[in-house]
Amino acid sequence: MGFCAEQLERHAALWHSMLTHPFLIATRDGTIADERFARWMRQDYLFVEAAIPFIAALVPKAPRAHWRPLAGAITALEKELELFEGRARVVGVELRGTPPSFVAHAYIQFLLATALRAGYAEAFTLLYAAEKAYHESWKVVRSGLEETSPWQPFVENWAGSAFAEYVGWLEGELDRLAAAAGEAERERMAETIALTVRYEIAFWQMALTDESWPGLEE
Amino acid sequence: MGFCAEQLERHAALWHSMLTHPFLIATRDGTIADERFARWMRQDYLFVEAAIPFIAALVPKAPRAHWRPLAGAITALEKELELFEGRARVVGVELRGTPPSFVAHAYIQFLLATALRAGYAEAFTLLYAAEKAYHESWKVVRSGLEETSPWQPFVENWAGSAFAEYVGWLEGELDRLAAAAGEAERERMAETIALTVRYEIAFWQMALTDESWPGLEE
Amino acid sequence: MGFCAEQLERHAALWHSMLTHPFLIATRDGTIADERFARWMRQDYLFVEAAIPFIAALVPKAPRAHWRPLAGAITALEKELELFEGRARVVGVELRGTPPSFVAHAYIQFLLATALRAGYAEAFTLLYAAEKAYHESWKVVRSGLEETSPWQPFVENWAGSAFAEYVGWLEGELDRLAAAAGEAERERMAETIALTVRYEIAFWQMALTDESWPGLEE
Amino acid sequence: MGFCAEQLERHAALWHSMLTHPFLIATRDGTIADERFARWMRQDYLFVEAAIPFIAALVPKAPRAHWRPLAGAITALEKELELFEGRARVVGVELRGTPPSFVAHAYIQFLLATALRAGYAEAFTLLYAAEKAYHESWKVVRSGLEETSPWQPFVENWAGSAFAEYVGWLEGELDRLAAAAGEAERERMAETIALTVRYEIAFWQMALTDESWPGLEE
Repeated sequence: MGFCAEQLERHAALWHSMLTHPFLIATRDGTIADERFARWMRQDYLFVEAAIPFIAALVPKAPRAHWRPLAGAITALEKELELFEGRARVVGVELRGTPPSFVAHAYIQFLLATALRAGYAEAFTLLYAAEKAYHESWKVVRSGLEETSPWQPFVENWAGSAFAEYVGWLEGELDRLAAAAGEAERERMAETIALTVRYEIAFWQMALTDESWPGLEE
Repeated sequence: MGFCAEQLERHAALWHSMLTHPFLIATRDGTIADERFARWMRQDYLFVEAAIPFIAALVPKAPRAHWRPLAGAITALEKELELFEGRARVVGVELRGTPPSFVAHAYIQFLLATALRAGYAEAFTLLYAAEKAYHESWKVVRSGLEETSPWQPFVENWAGSAFAEYVGWLEGELDRLAAAAGEAERERMAETIALTVRYEIAFWQMALTDESWPGLEE
Repeated sequence: MGFCAEQLERHAALWHSMLTHPFLIATRDGTIADERFARWMRQDYLFVEAAIPFIAALVPKAPRAHWRPLAGAITALEKELELFEGRARVVGVELRGTPPSFVAHAYIQFLLATALRAGYAEAFTLLYAAEKAYHESWKVVRSGLEETSPWQPFVENWAGSAFAEYVGWLEGELDRLAAAAGEAERERMAETIALTVRYEIAFWQMALTDESWPGLEE
Repeated sequence: MGFCAEQLERHAALWHSMLTHPFLIATRDGTIADERFARWMRQDYLFVEAAIPFIAALVPKAPRAHWRPLAGAITALEKELELFEGRARVVGVELRGTPPSFVAHAYIQFLLATALRAGYAEAFTLLYAAEKAYHESWKVVRSGLEETSPWQPFVENWAGSAFAEYVGWLEGELDRLAAAAGEAERERMAETIALTVRYEIAFWQMALTDESWPGLEE
């Protein structure tokens, strides 16, 4: 069993918490409140934007063969931003001008700190875990979302076959990196997966509840 | 008016929220629950430890004249860790083995991401704001804490004259850096102060309430 | 007068040394020895490749509006590598497998250290200076190169109008960054220009003479 | 056989070139020209200074147990700078105001780029190789230097027992890091040793000959 499969099994309870999160279930069932979905859109727009410098910061640490795929991932993120902008226009949500929620700010710091501080295998693990989380989360949404939902383009983007192929590539490469890593590094990689899923859950929770910073009423 | 004084005025409401936080007031009044203070000790121990790589990461960006003071700050942090260890022994708290709370993890990422990504003046701003926040917060505690409290050594450490001198040095240097910075950089520095105070408030709030990660029961 | 024009004037003697370097003159006149040109091709191929992580490392420090142009610069470098590969096939030069010369290794370290350590304006200065140097150097070659020379595609690439436009964009942005910078930062930016031109000259000199590491015969 | 012993054997020819370099031999024999030794002092003073941010940049990547020894190494470098200053006063050399030679500038970029870009084991390898090189080089000098030489304090510093102990610690830790590393990482570590020795040789060569930048007469 490869590293990724092994880790999904090891952290099955966390993955389950994520994939059954009330935000995802309500989105799938079409019962999510507009304002909650709008909150997710505004905050995730900030997150997707921040993923661009995150991936760029990986390149100087990456093996040569990863430079083009990483550049491709940046291009895909620019397209994702346009997807958000298009959806926001359709449903009349203003994407710009919202400051990051505590959780969004924190998750973005985790991205950047990991890319800049950790070794490549560890930082690449975060990329895999976040993309895998999105792929699986939106497959949950796809399983029940009405054909006519305005959120279908999100489903197509993250649950679709192009993204599946990208996640498959990430998985294969991460398995290879883990096989080549020493024991201590592999353990840090495993921790990075658990941390990333925890941040993902925190993000859905924030979308469901509020954008506040702890101890501050806003 | 220097940059620091200007920013303290500008963000007076945030500073007020921090300095009147229930955790500080209860600690000052001797009514803080042991478990809450222990939570703060365990989590702040992790934070102080993480401040060492944060400061080390500033050195390659710092002007030559800052290298020694920054090295001195690292030495002071090692002593702070010993202070925690001593206090923990006295009150029978186990410091090690606790995973970081969500807020502690997030704040640590903010430290590291800022040190590694931002320019020096911006990253130095975070150092100033966090140390100034500690100095002022523990002066609040000092104003009412009983002489015999086991937390007096924390008061002496952060509200005492050696720390005051250090914070004064940080303030003078930050004023100089801000005066030499361009407008856009100075605005990012101002934002860093507001963000740091928000993370400080979040930290006190976490100490008062819980170590949980949003969306996960623990 | 903008920062760039000012610096070109200030460092006119260095620019002159570069633009009259015997390697460039001999290439322009068609008298360059094949082996010398091949040496340049092999070493510059390594340098162009290393410029990709250099530019990627700028992105996390860059203002949002620069992310797309920087991503475009990476794409352009991938095409430059193909240009080298195509020319190498035409003239029967083996590009791969050559270790970096001392000068190439050193220049690459300068790129990476600057991108990772310096603030954005300073690191962007290096990018401008290196691209401007290439543009002007190949305009020297263009001024005398025979129409049928196998090196015409290099001329078209770096002395052509698309590259001129890119260098013009870099210049405009650098002027803006310098205008927004404080005095100390602007002085570091000025030094970065001088250093970059010195590395460029060292590179032409290495191409003309030898790939050796000082003190080692190879 | 540990990694270090293995690499010393593998790169025996390079180590031999370094340890028999004419600069070292002439220094040992007391026949080194004053101006050449002064050149080395001025340039190495710059290099030792740059080693401080290099080591500081390792801390955020280092395991916890390395933070104190690395902080200690920074303190030792500050003392080395004072050693240079003391020797310079004795022999009437002006240390300050000299710009870095090409080789010194390049080697410093190699330090910083490696600390900021590479994983910890690879960057730590550079530290080991440079310190080991100094230890062995000055043992060569010690083997013949007159008791009354003004350079005896350099010998005592780098060939003495405290430094030997430090190098022994570096060696033990590097052996452990190499044993824990994957194959590809260990190969990059091995390359880092070879590169560092090449830079060391280049540095002695520069001290012996000139501070010039290739292609520029100065």
